[in-house]
Amino acid sequence: MSNQIFFTPGPAQTFYTFEQHLKTAIKEDIPSISHRSKTFQDIFASTTENLKTLFDLPDGYHVYFTASATEVWERIAQNLINHSSHHFVNGSFSRRFYDITKAYQLNASAEEAAPGGSFSLNVPEEAELVAVAQNETSIGFNFPDKEIYQVAENKNSDALLAVDMGSCAPVVPIDFSRIDTAYFSVQKSFGLPAGLGVWIVNDRCLEKAAQKEKDGHITGSYHRLSQLQKYAAKHQTPETPNVLGIYLLGKVAQDMLYRGVKQLRNETIYKSAILYQTMKELSWISPFIEEEQYRSKTVGVGKLNGVSATEIIEQVKAKKLVLGQGYGPFKEEHLRIANFPTHSKEQMEMLVDLLATL
Amino acid sequence: MSNQIFFTPGPAQTFYTFEQHLKTAIKEDIPSISHRSKTFQDIFASTTENLKTLFDLPDGYHVYFTASATEVWERIAQNLINHSSHHFVNGSFSRRFYDITKAYQLNASAEEAAPGGSFSLNVPEEAELVAVAQNETSIGFNFPDKEIYQVAENKNSDALLAVDMGSCAPVVPIDFSRIDTAYFSVQKSFGLPAGLGVWIVNDRCLEKAAQKEKDGHITGSYHRLSQLQKYAAKHQTPETPNVLGIYLLGKVAQDMLYRGVKQLRNETIYKSAILYQTMKELSWISPFIEEEQYRSKTVGVGKLNGVSATEIIEQVKAKKLVLGQGYGPFKEEHLRIANFPTHSKEQMEMLVDLLATL
Repeated sequence: MSNQIFFTPGPAQTFYTFEQHLKTAIKEDIPSISHRSKTFQDIFASTTENLKTLFDLPDGYHVYFTASATEVWERIAQNLINHSSHHFVNGSFSRRFYDITKAYQLNASAEEAAPGGSFSLNVPEEAELVAVAQNETSIGFNFPDKEIYQVAENKNSDALLAVDMGSCAPVVPIDFSRIDTAYFSVQKSFGLPAGLGVWIVNDRCLEKAAQKEKDGHITGSYHRLSQLQKYAAKHQTPETPNVLGIYLLGKVAQDMLYRGVKQLRNETIYKSAILYQTMKELSWISPFIEEEQYRSKTVGVGKLNGVSATEIIEQVKAKKLVLGQGYGPFKEEHLRIANFPTHSKEQMEMLVDLLATL
Repeated sequence: MSNQIFFTPGPAQTFYTFEQHLKTAIKEDIPSISHRSKTFQDIFASTTENLKTLFDLPDGYHVYFTASATEVWERIAQNLINHSSHHFVNGSFSRRFYDITKAYQLNASAEEAAPGGSFSLNVPEEAELVAVAQNETSIGFNFPDKEIYQVAENKNSDALLAVDMGSCAPVVPIDFSRIDTAYFSVQKSFGLPAGLGVWIVNDRCLEKAAQKEKDGHITGSYHRLSQLQKYAAKHQTPETPNVLGIYLLGKVAQDMLYRGVKQLRNETIYKSAILYQTMKELSWISPFIEEEQYRSKTVGVGKLNGVSATEIIEQVKAKKLVLGQGYGPFKEEHLRIANFPTHSKEQMEMLVDLLATL
């Protein structure tokens, strides 16, 4: 690694043990092993076990690997929705899932709030699947867990609840027994190279997908849910997957377990507090999200006042710290600052001290 | 790397410059850079340019990135076929593409030959797309280029010709002006970690996909052909891709160009000749494919006589050389031996010398 520290929200700073695990992987020929070998089955089993522990998954929840969280949106549209889904949209990523269901010609509905705005939490009766972004990375919005559970109450009891955990897994807790499926990409809070997504589903999802398949609908091919499950049952994947990525994810998840999820969460809260406190104290930046409960703990977004994002990013980069630009229309108006498990308290303190001198 | 040499057909031995490029990538923070940055656009441009040179692509041919060749099968089914496709099936990989078109409820037809058998090359008039596996990795069958061009002649002139280049790209030549689309995964002859596929299409494919989309059919979402092209036009991908994989592929393609494709091809022919010659001379193994023109130059498959694949593999592994088992039903009856650009003449000589002593 260079001597830069990335505070970009994804791709992000690699996890502090990444380089060591990568070296071991190369030494152990992980890129060359067969995805049908016992060695791979052991890696698959260990990575999924570590994730199950990390997320405290109840029985009847399964872990699969895709190429990205973007792919999971598509697989959900293909496998878990026959007619209609409902989406809470207040940023670019929640919108993209909504758009994908429309590309699959599903009768999707959405409650659209202003960027970073909150929601009524009402759900149409006919929605078979409800989609919530726990952390809307584009504008740093946190969907509070209590509100997610309220959505769970409000929806039709047959409906499935899907949670996008992108850039907040595993440090923002969620009770999996109240949701049906969740997913994330590894290049955000896990600090790994992009090219791997994780899809967690429960038995209700498997049943829904099996019924859709049985009814003669197209549900995809190699990554239809029934195929993912068939291979996962023997600790394999349907196709040659990103073996190296699965290996590295298992190692980083293990390191997070060694450290303790509670510890990671406490550190996240501390680092987030000093970040937002700094934004509040400075004249040229303020937290974009007004209400504290809706502010993301893992991606702090600041609204700029009288300066452009490019200007600030250039100044900070001279000190070897890399910040994220605003997303889409907010490119020059926002700064996005990741607060991931790999960022130490000292690094975040160094960053806020620097911001205070600008 | 350990001191083993993998002769497995994929995942395979990494390219001999892989580790060096990986080190540079880590030093340059490639896993952390934004997929919307100028740095990524430069990587995308350089990798696609190197591939275009390596494959001598005519104007009007485009290079896109997917998660795997398996994904490309699905994207072809979604984007390039309205009603029916035709498949030449004589092994597990050509069969899998055929199966995927059926999962998409297309009216696919196939000419099925015995494993490794050859074909009539006839094509039904109604086939909109014809699928040929240039190198059927499961049984080491080479679809000769002359026969591929004959298929091109036999098909309806509107139909598209799709070529699976898995495990023979770029050392087995093909004239792209006679085919419409081709694809491969990087973990075979390119010697890179799995998790990246390359999809080459021409303008006829783009037009076909645009028409299918315009006609109101579902063609996928983030990886529909129109999206891949829209982003590729600005040297980007629709989603956060396997950035590290794209970087490494560009570097390995560059190294192949430095070495010279002609040189790689000549070496492949030499190594393949000594491998099959050894198989012919030994009593316990013989080339599985009878006719020489149908024998794969890059994956030599031997039929075993009186010994099991496991036995041989164990003996050879004691000398730190790793051979591939037979595929599917041939697991114990075949040995599969990769002959990829990363394998030096000396390594192949060492292997055949060892086989001769067993």
